[in-house]
Amino acid sequence: MFNIDQKLSENANSRDEVKFKTIMGEEYVVVHFELQHVILPETLKKLTPPKVDNRKGVVLSGRGPVWLYCFLTHFYHPTKFIAVYDPRIGKGIVIETHTPGYAVGDTVEVSIE
Amino acid sequence: MFNIDQKLSENANSRDEVKFKTIMGEEYVVVHFELQHVILPETLKKLTPPKVDNRKGVVLSGRGPVWLYCFLTHFYHPTKFIAVYDPRIGKGIVIETHTPGYAVGDTVEVSIE
Repeated sequence: MFNIDQKLSENANSRDEVKFKTIMGEEYVVVHFELQHVILPETLKKLTPPKVDNRKGVVLSGRGPVWLYCFLTHFYHPTKFIAVYDPRIGKGIVIETHTPGYAVGDTVEVSIE
Repeated sequence: MFNIDQKLSENANSRDEVKFKTIMGEEYVVVHFELQHVILPETLKKLTPPKVDNRKGVVLSGRGPVWLYCFLTHFYHPTKFIAVYDPRIGKGIVIETHTPGYAVGDTVEVSIE
């Protein structure tokens, strides 16, 4: 029953080309995206990623084009730090920081369900 | 003869894990990188990308991890705009802009030799 409801809910949102999911952590929020299909550059013009608490860091995650990641990097610029989850390494890589606790090139543990 | 010289020159720089090349355009600079081998996150700690004239845009190009691109996006934040070259599309995708002439999601023609 739960699965059916979930599926209906997903269908209702299927017009969105990029689906975002946020996973709250103590120190950071994982912003995970999923693409419905291959996206075109103009998708960026109307994209509204989820707002996050700027006192936390953000870890970006998902399968998509590099330019989507770079767009999100700029979008989340005001947050505490930004890391990019690398599935090959299995960790988030800090690429930008505004806090002494996290340095660029550091890795952060991320549990992505 | 020229090829041999070139090869020697490349060997002399082989300690650098990320090799950058800039290609000057009228409106933007292509910042192209090549990796000598798979890079580790800590490479970001000592990376010094080429300085560019902030009155121009930057187009990022190269084969490498998403987190390297995101690092470079932050690094070139002060420039006029940032685009990411997508080899599948064959153009640069604007992901960040500080000028009315270029909007996020626009594409720019890039000639990469």
